Amino acid sequence: MATIKDVANDAGVAVGTVSKVLNGQHVSAKNKKKVEASIAKLGYQMNYYARGLRTNDTYTIAVIVPDILNPFFACLVSYIERELYQRGYKMFLCQSQKDVAKEAYYLKLVHQNRVDGIIGVTYNETEPYLSGDIPMVMIDRHFKTDICCVSSDNFHGGELAAEYLVAGGSKRLLFIRTGSTLESETLKRGQGFEASCQKQGVVYKMVDFGDDTESYSEADIYQYLKSHMQGGVLFFDGIYTSTDGLALAVLELLRQLGIQVPQDVQVIGHDGLKHMNKGAYLLSSIAQPIKDMAKVSVDKAIRLIHKEPVDQMTILPVTFVYGGTTRQA
Amino acid sequence: MATIKDVANDAGVAVGTVSKVLNGQHVSAKNKKKVEASIAKLGYQMNYYARGLRTNDTYTIAVIVPDILNPFFACLVSYIERELYQRGYKMFLCQSQKDVAKEAYYLKLVHQNRVDGIIGVTYNETEPYLSGDIPMVMIDRHFKTDICCVSSDNFHGGELAAEYLVAGGSKRLLFIRTGSTLESETLKRGQGFEASCQKQGVVYKMVDFGDDTESYSEADIYQYLKSHMQGGVLFFDGIYTSTDGLALAVLELLRQLGIQVPQDVQVIGHDGLKHMNKGAYLLSSIAQPIKDMAKVSVDKAIRLIHKEPVDQMTILPVTFVYGGTTRQA
Repeated sequence: MATIKDVANDAGVAVGTVSKVLNGQHVSAKNKKKVEASIAKLGYQMNYYARGLRTNDTYTIAVIVPDILNPFFACLVSYIERELYQRGYKMFLCQSQKDVAKEAYYLKLVHQNRVDGIIGVTYNETEPYLSGDIPMVMIDRHFKTDICCVSSDNFHGGELAAEYLVAGGSKRLLFIRTGSTLESETLKRGQGFEASCQKQGVVYKMVDFGDDTESYSEADIYQYLKSHMQGGVLFFDGIYTSTDGLALAVLELLRQLGIQVPQDVQVIGHDGLKHMNKGAYLLSSIAQPIKDMAKVSVDKAIRLIHKEPVDQMTILPVTFVYGGTTRQA
Repeated sequence: MATIKDVANDAGVAVGTVSKVLNGQHVSAKNKKKVEASIAKLGYQMNYYARGLRTNDTYTIAVIVPDILNPFFACLVSYIERELYQRGYKMFLCQSQKDVAKEAYYLKLVHQNRVDGIIGVTYNETEPYLSGDIPMVMIDRHFKTDICCVSSDNFHGGELAAEYLVAGGSKRLLFIRTGSTLESETLKRGQGFEASCQKQGVVYKMVDFGDDTESYSEADIYQYLKSHMQGGVLFFDGIYTSTDGLALAVLELLRQLGIQVPQDVQVIGHDGLKHMNKGAYLLSSIAQPIKDMAKVSVDKAIRLIHKEPVDQMTILPVTFVYGGTTRQA
């Protein structure tokens, strides 16, 4: 079996040059080409296990998200994998499905030297497993401990939603949320919405239907909407929801109640999901910069692995996107 | 740091029993509980690298799909990850994005002892990298070499589509496909459709718009449909497409052409995608048994890793699902 020395001899370069190519470090384009040709010619294969033992690096990052059946997380994971591959890293995918034990299992892989770092979206109380010296980047969740975080501007997203609903003529606004009530950046969506409603002096109401894994949420929302109707008219004429998934459920409930969107009621979601993740927007929404969030998360994780300085918190901008459920584009 | 002997002493069992628990092998429920309690109490952590060197097993499978932005692949990957986790395996996710080099990189990980096996959906000419002795399961792609394959009954899916279109009153059928033309189980969708059209004695046409990564496909399909219209009426009154994604694009083109679905034209897709991957079906379709395909693929991969016998080909049943774009439910 060919060794690294054989490759160096064949390519006519130093062993260190071959090593740099293998580790994705910079060498001249000419030398890179020579080394790659020799690797191919000799069928050289790196012993990754030996490399792992020597350098303690696995070039692997575990990505923990609740569930990629949710298109938002599928998009996020998709872009993270692209970024990681470009940087020479492989990705373990873990769908925590709100299972604390499963999350803990992946978090422990760092201690076991099976992965170099973690990028996670977690809604569990996983703090016992966390300590500041692990290369870890959390998306949308700002732990009290010193964990690095990447998020989008959820507060401004809420403000934008209230502004667009009012600009489109709505006078009585409703914010509906479901999901974890653990401290999280995403809670700021409602806070920004409320702040803007107060600033604009518009009537508003905030309702929380708890965790969306509870199957009774949708029936509860239906009852809530129905109890606020009189003579076929809903008291609220503008609705902002905490996610696009929830907005789609609300749109279906409004359809069942005979309410026209956007004529009677405008609806704005949050996430910016598209048809098949590539077509038109599913509905008017506050779009998160998913690609940028993936890029910044990967960049931070790799910097942490290399013990380079990173900003503890990065907040990326959001935008309003038109998808047919508001009166203004 | 606690050793495996410490765990055995604390639990009052043999070292071999602890080892079995760590490797997911069968021990009595009572002993399993004791060992797990001692592991938790002593904070024992397996040295996976050392284990990897010793047993040559990584308990990792690489899953290669084109792109999880496509909801079909997101579903498939999601269910595969669940199955793998239940079996004690971790998952590398690779989105090949039809990049041969990226696929080859992951395929080579098997040789480098970085993964135990591969589950893949690939549309590239990756055969040079394949050999029969690698634990590998391909989904929907039947290589000429001895690679294990899991697929759904694509031929019968095509037959079902033709039958449902005719049962709903369509008399002039059209099959539209895009995508790779490499030999693949998915090509049988059109073959089954054609066979059923001939058997039913109905007028039909088969058209292929090549690889859907080509951006001009949609304009081509639009032109094709338009050129088969006369006085606002489309010659074809029943359309079956090779995927749901393509069907959604066709539905939008029909809308632009002023054609009513399902009144004027019935449309059936293939895959069985749902709103947000959990709600109602996006359209009438031939549903693949994605969960079962994931389960069987994982089962076969692990059997191959353990050098146990497996069927080379498994074909799982498909079903017609109603999603509003056909006249019959």
